[in-house]
Amino acid sequence: MAEQGYQVGILDSDIHGPTIPTMLGLESERITQSEDGLKPIQASKNLKVLSMGFLINNKDDPIIWRGPMKMGAIKQLLGDFNWGTLDYLIIDLPPGTGDEPLSIAQLIPKMTGAIIVTTPQDVALVSVRKSIMFVKKINIPLIGIIENMSGFSCPHCGKEINIFKSGGGKKAALNLNVPFLGTIPLDPHIVEAGDAGSTILEKDAQITKSLYKISENMKKQLKNKGD
Amino acid sequence: MAEQGYQVGILDSDIHGPTIPTMLGLESERITQSEDGLKPIQASKNLKVLSMGFLINNKDDPIIWRGPMKMGAIKQLLGDFNWGTLDYLIIDLPPGTGDEPLSIAQLIPKMTGAIIVTTPQDVALVSVRKSIMFVKKINIPLIGIIENMSGFSCPHCGKEINIFKSGGGKKAALNLNVPFLGTIPLDPHIVEAGDAGSTILEKDAQITKSLYKISENMKKQLKNKGD
Repeated sequence: MAEQGYQVGILDSDIHGPTIPTMLGLESERITQSEDGLKPIQASKNLKVLSMGFLINNKDDPIIWRGPMKMGAIKQLLGDFNWGTLDYLIIDLPPGTGDEPLSIAQLIPKMTGAIIVTTPQDVALVSVRKSIMFVKKINIPLIGIIENMSGFSCPHCGKEINIFKSGGGKKAALNLNVPFLGTIPLDPHIVEAGDAGSTILEKDAQITKSLYKISENMKKQLKNKGD
Repeated sequence: MAEQGYQVGILDSDIHGPTIPTMLGLESERITQSEDGLKPIQASKNLKVLSMGFLINNKDDPIIWRGPMKMGAIKQLLGDFNWGTLDYLIIDLPPGTGDEPLSIAQLIPKMTGAIIVTTPQDVALVSVRKSIMFVKKINIPLIGIIENMSGFSCPHCGKEINIFKSGGGKKAALNLNVPFLGTIPLDPHIVEAGDAGSTILEKDAQITKSLYKISENMKKQLKNKGD
């Protein structure tokens, strides 16, 4: 979406394990005060990023906080920073139905919606079904489900290997009558790119096509919701 | 360890996403009151299991609790149940350095120690280093690190594929001067067995050898700590 000129913000709300700075190659960035107040990190022309990872001095230091402290931190990351004008603010949440998503739901009452990301195996789907019930109970519209680490082909012999299986997210979406946004294949290049902080988007690559398809489906769902 | 006659308890302290019941094939079990009080589920002769999954009526229902409620629940799971005499109580924690591990640390001041499980890629190691600092800060002895999903061989052509890389957990253990307990290879059979609730332990299988080696190393570390 970014190349169309949209302004996008990413808020990493995983207070204990912020990994977005590493995955975007921004590990050494730190927040500084400017004339316009505190600002998120400008990752590229169209992308602003904010994470607890930018606010701690030693990246190995754990953040040993109970829920109320985390709520306070999320409130500050949302409210005390000058995000400028954004078309989309994407908030990355840790797993679970506890303090972080509850805080976000309370702090942004008119949220467009939630996206649930799952791996395909049954054990993961136990938690996905809970997450779907969670967003319904707290009245957040559900944009849809994405199935990550879905299917795998051996890069040597090309044969399919079902590491985390595939299709479980799609099946759950159908069963529970919620939109399915697409699949992201398990791909060692994603791990490498995440560790190196570089992009995996390459013209004609299967993974790029998968990700664009998901963003197109997301836009369709958002239009349906009248956003 | 179980076949030597040890009595082992597992407490699933992941309040929001309890997956241990599924992985042990105990999904339909529910806690009932008995003459000796509330009891964990007897999974086998040597294994008792307790999880929030046994206490909710509908397995899709999310537990929408903030930290203090979770602390209360963990306190009840530890204190209000009749665990009988155990040689080992293993507490499975969700990721992060928040309410769940803090609650456990407060409720069990004389804990033998913590085991940190990680995947090998750099992004995961960011969180592992935080977890190590966390247990040091709150004065819990560190039994060691286990590297999960480490390395992968194609079941068709036998060639190595570095999906989540390998060696990262071992490297982190060496760098931070903490014991390394061993590696668990990425293996689709583990996913299948977890979903089916069946065991993956088979005589002579590589995965069984890896798991026994880890349990031997754990016992050595516990002896060193004078337990």
